[in-house]
Amino acid sequence: MSIADRLAELKITLPPAPKPVAAYIPAVRTGSLVFISGQLPLKDGELLASGPVPSRVSLEEAQAAARQCVLNALAVLAAQVGDDLDRVEQIVRLGVFVCCEAGFTDQPKVGNGASELLQSIFGEKGRHARAAVGSIALPLGATVEVEMIAEVS
Amino acid sequence: MSIADRLAELKITLPPAPKPVAAYIPAVRTGSLVFISGQLPLKDGELLASGPVPSRVSLEEAQAAARQCVLNALAVLAAQVGDDLDRVEQIVRLGVFVCCEAGFTDQPKVGNGASELLQSIFGEKGRHARAAVGSIALPLGATVEVEMIAEVS
Amino acid sequence: MSIADRLAELKITLPPAPKPVAAYIPAVRTGSLVFISGQLPLKDGELLASGPVPSRVSLEEAQAAARQCVLNALAVLAAQVGDDLDRVEQIVRLGVFVCCEAGFTDQPKVGNGASELLQSIFGEKGRHARAAVGSIALPLGATVEVEMIAEVS
Repeated sequence: MSIADRLAELKITLPPAPKPVAAYIPAVRTGSLVFISGQLPLKDGELLASGPVPSRVSLEEAQAAARQCVLNALAVLAAQVGDDLDRVEQIVRLGVFVCCEAGFTDQPKVGNGASELLQSIFGEKGRHARAAVGSIALPLGATVEVEMIAEVS
Repeated sequence: MSIADRLAELKITLPPAPKPVAAYIPAVRTGSLVFISGQLPLKDGELLASGPVPSRVSLEEAQAAARQCVLNALAVLAAQVGDDLDRVEQIVRLGVFVCCEAGFTDQPKVGNGASELLQSIFGEKGRHARAAVGSIALPLGATVEVEMIAEVS
Repeated sequence: MSIADRLAELKITLPPAPKPVAAYIPAVRTGSLVFISGQLPLKDGELLASGPVPSRVSLEEAQAAARQCVLNALAVLAAQVGDDLDRVEQIVRLGVFVCCEAGFTDQPKVGNGASELLQSIFGEKGRHARAAVGSIALPLGATVEVEMIAEVS
């Protein structure tokens, strides 16, 4: 099944590729690797979640935010491969930054909102290495930021 | 001297490769690069150190934790190269995240617990680029998380 | 115009390549990629800015610090390419860590101090992917740390 069909089956429509909020570009390709800039949980121009977990944002909301970051990253990635996500050979690495308070320990569960979506879309090719860490504050006040490296053909 | 002999000389036994604590995989190889997921200072299923430096964990304890993260990363790396660490051409980069309080400035010394071990095992091939930063909170409450990129043959 | 000429036009003199403050090396090359260690805003051995934004350091000061981190990274990169920065094919990725207090949201603007300098020096080849995040504390008390990946020939 093509990735486009798989997205349709999952009832996922990728958003328009988000513009960076500053003086850099959404992605750079070098060889077969695409480095995608840190994505925020923006949807239709609004943050899905802002402020730290757990005082301001629940674990479930943070997971949904991480998922949205990945949708935005995939929109960027699609633009790099002529909108043909079947050219994705492997999702290589995710960096997941979670805005949280001291003592919060569930960054991996937040990151799973990102990781599980990738696996459901790409199967084996969606299984990636990952680092998930806490951050005192993220751009625009976002609860989550996700950056990605993908191998493409 | 082979890396296996060098490990024996250093009286280092690699642990079993740790399982990730969430929906991702321990390592992804792309070309000659292996991206290894962020490793925690788990030993026999327990964290060697948890909570922030310096109020809860000393610099020395954090350094030992960073060293344990690297042992876990090497166990993952060994599994990627058929248990033959002589196939490691170069340790390329470490990302070191140190759970700490505001005002703590010795992240590089914590990171040295990781870096010096790599150099003692791999010699020139163990000398790597590194970014060491503070983090307000890490997965499971760990004091240190270390991710790694290695070049292999 | 060569990059050397462009630097002269911008009246930029690269500093001597900074030594790492710990047991690692300034850069590792693997294939066509150079991974450069996290750089601090050191100038003539002193930090341009220390402590968190915004209570101790202004946005403008943090931007200048980010710019200095890039100058140091370019000094390291120059040493990797025989002092011929025309061999830089692409700046691939920046990681920008900003020491800040909870609630600070302008990490992208701080990062622009780094990104805009690269674009002014390298033009299209200076346009990169980026992740900018907040950090509770950085090495030596620095306000900013920047790591870089570059593609070289």
